Amino acid sequence: TELELAPKDAKFERSKLEDLLKRRFFYDQSFAIYGGVAGLYDYGPMGCALKSNMIQLWRKHFILEENMLEVECSALTPENVLKASGHVDRFIDWMVKDVKTGECFRADHFIKNHAEALLKNAKTSADVKNELNDILARLDGYSNKEMDDVIRKFNLKSPITGNDVTEAVSFNLMFPTQIGPTGDFRAYLRPETAQGIFINFKRLLEFNQGKLPFAAAQIGAGFRNEISPRQGLIRVREFTMCEIEHFVDPQDKAHQKFSKVADLELTLFSACNQMDGKGTVRMRIGDAVAQGIVDNETLGYYMARCHLYMILVGVDPNRLRFRQHMSNEMAHYAKDCWDAEVLTSYGWIECVGNADRACYDLDQHYKMTNVKLVAEKTLSQPKIVQVTEAVPNKALIGKLFKSDGKQIMARLQELNKEEVEVLEKALKEKGTFDMAINDKIFELKPELLEIKRYEKTVHVDEIVPSVIEPSYGIGRILYAVLEHSFRQREGDEQRTFLELKPNVAPIKCSILPISVDEKLAQIVDAVREELVSHELSLKVDDSSGSIGRRYARTDEIGIPFGITVDFESVKNIDVTLRYAATMQQVRMKVTDVGKTVEALVKGTITWDEVTEKFPIFQAKSEAN
Amino acid sequence: TELELAPKDAKFERSKLEDLLKRRFFYDQSFAIYGGVAGLYDYGPMGCALKSNMIQLWRKHFILEENMLEVECSALTPENVLKASGHVDRFIDWMVKDVKTGECFRADHFIKNHAEALLKNAKTSADVKNELNDILARLDGYSNKEMDDVIRKFNLKSPITGNDVTEAVSFNLMFPTQIGPTGDFRAYLRPETAQGIFINFKRLLEFNQGKLPFAAAQIGAGFRNEISPRQGLIRVREFTMCEIEHFVDPQDKAHQKFSKVADLELTLFSACNQMDGKGTVRMRIGDAVAQGIVDNETLGYYMARCHLYMILVGVDPNRLRFRQHMSNEMAHYAKDCWDAEVLTSYGWIECVGNADRACYDLDQHYKMTNVKLVAEKTLSQPKIVQVTEAVPNKALIGKLFKSDGKQIMARLQELNKEEVEVLEKALKEKGTFDMAINDKIFELKPELLEIKRYEKTVHVDEIVPSVIEPSYGIGRILYAVLEHSFRQREGDEQRTFLELKPNVAPIKCSILPISVDEKLAQIVDAVREELVSHELSLKVDDSSGSIGRRYARTDEIGIPFGITVDFESVKNIDVTLRYAATMQQVRMKVTDVGKTVEALVKGTITWDEVTEKFPIFQAKSEAN
Repeated sequence: TELELAPKDAKFERSKLEDLLKRRFFYDQSFAIYGGVAGLYDYGPMGCALKSNMIQLWRKHFILEENMLEVECSALTPENVLKASGHVDRFIDWMVKDVKTGECFRADHFIKNHAEALLKNAKTSADVKNELNDILARLDGYSNKEMDDVIRKFNLKSPITGNDVTEAVSFNLMFPTQIGPTGDFRAYLRPETAQGIFINFKRLLEFNQGKLPFAAAQIGAGFRNEISPRQGLIRVREFTMCEIEHFVDPQDKAHQKFSKVADLELTLFSACNQMDGKGTVRMRIGDAVAQGIVDNETLGYYMARCHLYMILVGVDPNRLRFRQHMSNEMAHYAKDCWDAEVLTSYGWIECVGNADRACYDLDQHYKMTNVKLVAEKTLSQPKIVQVTEAVPNKALIGKLFKSDGKQIMARLQELNKEEVEVLEKALKEKGTFDMAINDKIFELKPELLEIKRYEKTVHVDEIVPSVIEPSYGIGRILYAVLEHSFRQREGDEQRTFLELKPNVAPIKCSILPISVDEKLAQIVDAVREELVSHELSLKVDDSSGSIGRRYARTDEIGIPFGITVDFESVKNIDVTLRYAATMQQVRMKVTDVGKTVEALVKGTITWDEVTEKFPIFQAKSEAN
Repeated sequence: TELELAPKDAKFERSKLEDLLKRRFFYDQSFAIYGGVAGLYDYGPMGCALKSNMIQLWRKHFILEENMLEVECSALTPENVLKASGHVDRFIDWMVKDVKTGECFRADHFIKNHAEALLKNAKTSADVKNELNDILARLDGYSNKEMDDVIRKFNLKSPITGNDVTEAVSFNLMFPTQIGPTGDFRAYLRPETAQGIFINFKRLLEFNQGKLPFAAAQIGAGFRNEISPRQGLIRVREFTMCEIEHFVDPQDKAHQKFSKVADLELTLFSACNQMDGKGTVRMRIGDAVAQGIVDNETLGYYMARCHLYMILVGVDPNRLRFRQHMSNEMAHYAKDCWDAEVLTSYGWIECVGNADRACYDLDQHYKMTNVKLVAEKTLSQPKIVQVTEAVPNKALIGKLFKSDGKQIMARLQELNKEEVEVLEKALKEKGTFDMAINDKIFELKPELLEIKRYEKTVHVDEIVPSVIEPSYGIGRILYAVLEHSFRQREGDEQRTFLELKPNVAPIKCSILPISVDEKLAQIVDAVREELVSHELSLKVDDSSGSIGRRYARTDEIGIPFGITVDFESVKNIDVTLRYAATMQQVRMKVTDVGKTVEALVKGTITWDEVTEKFPIFQAKSEAN
């Protein structure tokens, strides 16, 4: 139903867009001369510039605007870090294998493809169709056992060989490697950039002079070893993420700047509406937070900023929605999660996750390392607390445990009240307590420590911050922008082009002399210098094709503005400026060109305003 | 001797710089709370901004200035690609292992450390010292066998356990992984970004409309599994590279813009001078190319541009030299290679390689894939060539080899004259020819093809371009910049700071109100808006420390300019602007601040000019 509500774009033919992107090398399959690798893409000059412009705008919109702490962490990640984060155990997909050839299929895709084929098959009975539709609706939440049952029940075979397939086996989606020469230091390529930020929490908090809230951000590569990647840039094995971790007091998730965005209307698809089979609603984000539909101001603030970013770079606002995770798809620790989804020819695609991850990650790394990842919160009034602590007998512990002593003493001092009481009880009842530190067990006797109880006035609380995490998949957004920017000229549908927003366009302006001539070349040089002095990227096309044909080529790669240098230019030192989206042209002095195009790119002036300021130029038809 | 010639900086204490960089989180060891991993570093907010500014300047200086084609390719790389490039077989270090514990040491470092200890030992005889010095001088060129001999001769043991070590075994420095779920698609993390460009040569040439020369560039991560990384950012396992591959006609390596740099003087350390035990010479790059010291204009052009970039970002020109590779350290295919080396407290460090790699890489990938990686060169006059070709009998081949037929026919058409003659001879003499395509053998009979000989007039030659490759290690340059920028205030040597060039400084300007006051806060806001409107990064420090102490903190992180807001500011709407390097201050209107700081950052005005334009402000001493 969501697909039906979305604006129709009946003319969109994906193959035409793909042809353009390949031909003009926006991006293409990696290692193509070696046969290519599924899920890996190389960006050519146009794609690379588009992507880098999108990232630069992201940095301005988020990091600079909000004074975030940007970091750049290692992609190589030791196994125990990802054990703590849960990725080693749970970052898996289920797959089935052809029992004879060993070919692998992602189990849910395997079922989905079969089910869709059966649904299209006229011989399939109405009852079976109902059952299949029910399976498709619930497939995302299926366990491996449930998927096995479906495969057996419908006797699903390999689509390639017709052979049986195995039961679903789990496959970890991280790329494994080892660090160093011994081969026993297991590591992975990070599946997300977030963990690097969590691990640096103490350094970042200190950098922020101990104050909450603050946000850190990272732009970098993530890696996921997808079982069988498809759908172009949508599902890839190596990708650029832009992630923010906003650390906040769990008791106070208000956002200082929320009022600035409260009036913004977003398209929300809440978990309730999904369960009730209802559609999306448009709603002020202020109301959504006030009504508890979105959990808190900070999360709401980032959703609003997300909406603004997506539109800034060229996502069609009518094909953008925020879908709330259902409770069964949300991680157990998460408090709330809203994906920014964009409608493309592949359906609604998750491009951004906006999640309140509570204190899960910091807690997990604390558990694994025994390093406290907490912030201090000044209390409104001091409070008196009962302290129960285990004070080590340093001399005795040092003597008995030698170099391990330091670790044992550190651990003793970190025990909280409950842990001290467990220790005390054990020492009293059994006369001994086994303390585990990093896989080693140390046997503690009563004489090694003293249990002390006293009252203390404290002025600060230690709190584990909650984390609000907006996580952007730049490649997916880039693909959505390309689809939403793809146009065909009316009346000449072979002539396709990209109406990219000037701020993200790889090249801002073309310069086309009407013919090869020394006098024109001088004007071309003057225009080029004008543009360069305003730091505008440009492309001179002085090839011999007709102006119309040359504009068709620059339109294809999304160059928004074009300058024609003709013989009039030599007389008046003026040129025409053309806007690709409308093909309208105006006439202006060469000295006006730099500042006008710069203002158009920055969005401080609209094309309509330009047409009011400068005389319209009636060009001959651009048809070849 | 080179170290002696370099300017002395006796006061430099590396530990003080390291303390600053750690304390203010420029960068620090990755995964520290998990015990850390050698050779992996995380960049904090200051390091990240410094690095990103350096990269942005690199992009401007090279990619934009020269209209290079920027690409972004996959880091995950299939094994056969790196087999072709030679990395699978030859990208190795030799290591020795403790025979009992298995601990690994890089063999050359193992020998070097032992030799240096022996040289310092008073008991070592003069003869042995001579021998050790000779070994150290030649160690870089030693084979594993020669290193084994040294280890046995001097009976070198593990420095940790005193145990014997094994013979040197090779260790490949690439991180291995697998792509996809089957486990049999072997891959590595790329050890350099260059291969991605070579593999895309055809697409890039086409993008450039078939014309030579052109340059492509890539900024991205490289990975090397060092055996035992040391020396901070100098030797790391994950790093950012900026690489250029300039494709040029092997017969014509002139560079169109060479005359623009020909007068630039570089410090050259030629292979001859190294062999003759002579020092460096300062020389116009124009002369160096004319005299054949540097092989060609294109290589010379990039060396000059390299020199300019290094100085632009803050490398001390007196601690920068270009060292030519000796013939024994240069790859066999390379024509010439000059490393830009920078003198640091670790000695002369290679930061950039400028190499003429001839046509090696394109040739290798052609051999592996059978895809021709060539450009067409228009001949000055048409020439007549004798063609010998094998024309397949398509019908028969299709019938006989079915789906393999297409491949066989393609291969036949690709054969060059010599290959056709080998084929012809075999068919004549043995009546059969075994053609190998991708591990498969196809038996060809005479009736499957016809050998044709004829004359043809050709207007273009196919040529395999030569590649000039400048390759920048950004982390190393960044570290060198930090060392060269490190200062201690005269008379107060505890007060250390970074005199970073304004163009790379992470934060351009600080704003310090002299005390907490609502009226001052309004001026602070006005100054902030001024700076933001000029896109200048800033930091407001309204904490309660003395101005001197606060400036000491901003000086530490290399903020070049500081603005003090005092009670006079409220009256006159003016502020003082301070230059950290000299601690001089001038007084100016708030409305002048933005454009002045922007001009200082862009380098369009010097500080001296600012002091002439605005009145000097006599501040009280900054001593606390």
